Amino acid sequence: MSYSTLEKTFYRLAQLEHAGAMLGWDQQVMMPSGGNDSRGRALAELDVLNTEILQAPALADAFAQAEQDKANLNDWQLANLKQMRSHWKQATSVPKDLVEAYAMATNECEYAWRSLRTDNNWTDFEPLLQKVFDLTKEKAQALNNALGAERGYANDYEALLDIFDPGTTMSRIDPVFAQLKEAIPGLLTQITEKQNAASPIIQPSAPVDKAKQIALAKELMSNLGFDFNHGRLDEAAHPFSGGVSDDSRITSRYDENNVIEGIMGVIHETGHSRYETGLPKDWRFQPVGQAMGMGVHESQSLFFEMQLGRSAPFIDAIAPIVKKFSGNEAAYQADNMRKMYTHVKPGLIRVNADEVTYPLHVILRYELERDIILGRASVSDIPERWDESMSRYLGLDTKGDYKNGPMQDVHWPSGAVGYFPSYTLGALNAAQLHEAMLKQIPNAPQLVASLDLEPIFDWLATNIWSKGSSLSYDELMVQATGETLNPAYFLNHINSRYLG
Amino acid sequence: MSYSTLEKTFYRLAQLEHAGAMLGWDQQVMMPSGGNDSRGRALAELDVLNTEILQAPALADAFAQAEQDKANLNDWQLANLKQMRSHWKQATSVPKDLVEAYAMATNECEYAWRSLRTDNNWTDFEPLLQKVFDLTKEKAQALNNALGAERGYANDYEALLDIFDPGTTMSRIDPVFAQLKEAIPGLLTQITEKQNAASPIIQPSAPVDKAKQIALAKELMSNLGFDFNHGRLDEAAHPFSGGVSDDSRITSRYDENNVIEGIMGVIHETGHSRYETGLPKDWRFQPVGQAMGMGVHESQSLFFEMQLGRSAPFIDAIAPIVKKFSGNEAAYQADNMRKMYTHVKPGLIRVNADEVTYPLHVILRYELERDIILGRASVSDIPERWDESMSRYLGLDTKGDYKNGPMQDVHWPSGAVGYFPSYTLGALNAAQLHEAMLKQIPNAPQLVASLDLEPIFDWLATNIWSKGSSLSYDELMVQATGETLNPAYFLNHINSRYLG
Repeated sequence: MSYSTLEKTFYRLAQLEHAGAMLGWDQQVMMPSGGNDSRGRALAELDVLNTEILQAPALADAFAQAEQDKANLNDWQLANLKQMRSHWKQATSVPKDLVEAYAMATNECEYAWRSLRTDNNWTDFEPLLQKVFDLTKEKAQALNNALGAERGYANDYEALLDIFDPGTTMSRIDPVFAQLKEAIPGLLTQITEKQNAASPIIQPSAPVDKAKQIALAKELMSNLGFDFNHGRLDEAAHPFSGGVSDDSRITSRYDENNVIEGIMGVIHETGHSRYETGLPKDWRFQPVGQAMGMGVHESQSLFFEMQLGRSAPFIDAIAPIVKKFSGNEAAYQADNMRKMYTHVKPGLIRVNADEVTYPLHVILRYELERDIILGRASVSDIPERWDESMSRYLGLDTKGDYKNGPMQDVHWPSGAVGYFPSYTLGALNAAQLHEAMLKQIPNAPQLVASLDLEPIFDWLATNIWSKGSSLSYDELMVQATGETLNPAYFLNHINSRYLG
Repeated sequence: MSYSTLEKTFYRLAQLEHAGAMLGWDQQVMMPSGGNDSRGRALAELDVLNTEILQAPALADAFAQAEQDKANLNDWQLANLKQMRSHWKQATSVPKDLVEAYAMATNECEYAWRSLRTDNNWTDFEPLLQKVFDLTKEKAQALNNALGAERGYANDYEALLDIFDPGTTMSRIDPVFAQLKEAIPGLLTQITEKQNAASPIIQPSAPVDKAKQIALAKELMSNLGFDFNHGRLDEAAHPFSGGVSDDSRITSRYDENNVIEGIMGVIHETGHSRYETGLPKDWRFQPVGQAMGMGVHESQSLFFEMQLGRSAPFIDAIAPIVKKFSGNEAAYQADNMRKMYTHVKPGLIRVNADEVTYPLHVILRYELERDIILGRASVSDIPERWDESMSRYLGLDTKGDYKNGPMQDVHWPSGAVGYFPSYTLGALNAAQLHEAMLKQIPNAPQLVASLDLEPIFDWLATNIWSKGSSLSYDELMVQATGETLNPAYFLNHINSRYLG
């Protein structure tokens, strides 16, 4: 009977996560600034409560008994037990005081970041970020001490990778990132030459007001199967996908002079959202019913944005919709939009980066956060290291521009150290999944051209969304694509889209 | 040391209440309908968790020890201990399964009510409401069994009154309501005659769009000291005041053809909000730092709406602001607005009722819910009893009009049985407090005329808001006004405003 005790406990944790997810969404979208102290306390207490529930001594007995009862469990229950065990082990490794201090520090830093970023104020930001990194190091060490042998961590940083993308290690990342670092500069040169030889891109001449951009976003979301009966679109400083699987909350930001970037942001978040809302309903309050690591999560948002969203047939199909809300300008002609959406140009901002230079933004952050956690660099080194890497990888000068440099991302202030590699692993996964989908649905480009996307989403639902966390990452990729992660698909995709 | 253990426990409960308050606000203001099942589960689990924390056996020991350590506690700590004990006793009286079933049933009924009310669909509503009343009866019985002797309940219904307005009994309500039932019909006749003899009210000729009404509401809220750094105004089907003391969320609804009622709704909710945000900061996460019963809460909203908001000097002062947003119409001249805001006319809807007929709406509901809880009537009797009482008290026919009859209020579907009397007790308190304030600030009408309201709010802050729950209801009224509840002030107020 102990497996069912565990399910009951994890059902409770899922309800606390519901509360945390909604309070977190509200904090970024609705909350007046004076509410932050109370909100931080409430979120911290939910974290502590979560940890206490997982650290209850009776739970250890329940796990021991459930392991002995395994013969009575079906495959999903077994997979659920494995996931429950993994959450439990991670939670019992970090002391309660540290969990609370970490929640308070990240809440404080993330909140301050919102205005300090606007003010380009690194000086006041650094001590808050220092505190976050100090506590993250403590947390990484605690996790490595407790789980290192069992999970095979080579160092503290790998304990952080394992939080966001279970099973991902530096030995998976390093060879892949090395390949990208070697291949991208050459590709970039060729793509730039080809682009320079083409006719120039026509820029929109008139701004598009926010209300129209929101209406446009909602129409595109509907085309992508977003169900507004189970979700919302709102505005936030940093676009994100939050909420719960029955009530998906995505956000966007709107620049009146740049409707083009906002559209792809919304398509990206819609990809995250469809994954969440497509998870197995029967298991929605259990760990096995949750999304897999962030590498898989990003593979879905990037499948939507990069594989579908920026493909020629998709752009051709949405051009009339964009024109309807943005104005009948030459800029919104399909062929010009294709150019805009596949324009490659090194830039300072990761979230605005094209898919060719994006991995270099990630590699910069990966190398930096890894070195801080491993004691090879400190938080005060960030601005200098950032400048050096931006200059070396992308040939750009970012000196003194903290706002568009190391203060541009919400990840570090919110404590998400170890997260960045997932973006690039996700891009690689997306390319590999797209290729596999094409083999099974050869007329996919024609379907995309008529925005008849359901067969493609059904393929994703069958192969990814409905699996929850019942498979390992390698199993998932092998079942869906016939092989484990292979960066060749991504490099082929870049070659064929930009140099084909 | 046990008192501090208790404080720690109640701090945790305050954080769970923060989560519950915000999830509740979101449910009514933001949540897409498909999110309701998950939201109901999360709210139910928070309730169960709250109950479990209060039912933990160790807490009984902590209370026993804290009682012995009383000599070391200051007055606020002693008052806090009393409040903690009262919450604990209430929570330990109701079985956990019942708490959960009650939360699920009220969530389901309240949610369904939103659309069934629109459809005037009593048939589908009745079984859901039946379930709520059945569980409420079980709850009332459990509370009476456990606390009846100690708290002096004469019956199960008094256990419900005690939840919303601690210390209020039928023996406090009945004589007061009898006085009102006797006095109001005569007053109503005289007022109607006087009104009929006066020149007619000029109605606005043009609608006022929602955006302008919101801007108007916000300007009035600012004049009433609402701090938008610590709160928000949003739209909801039923206006309410929610959130937490640092982050007050009030709502309104907007009818383009009736800017007049909406204004008073906002002033009313601002009164609730200022009470909440004016509670003692040092005690905001402890029971003694919370608002007192709903009778006192309503006294603040009605002080704002009825004593200040509908007074001649206030209406004169806001007329230019109303005109600025609503149009330069004769309807918005000060003297016409005075007439509109003191127009007395029996109507079907409680929340739109004038202050003269309002008590009759409350008395109708009080008699009905009391009789259901005490087994003298059943839920299926509601429509007929409603029609009878409306006809007897207000001379109105409401047959078949469930939407504007027994389905008009959120209270019963959400399980708030025992709440209604607080509205009228609050109106009586407000009149009594206003009279006491006038004695200490004789130039208050001049201050109101220039919207220089801080001295009046300071008086409320000193006498009511800053007290939290440190005093009993009688102590509070005696300290603030020199005597306990006396309905004469309300009847004098009606006489002087409408017949003076």
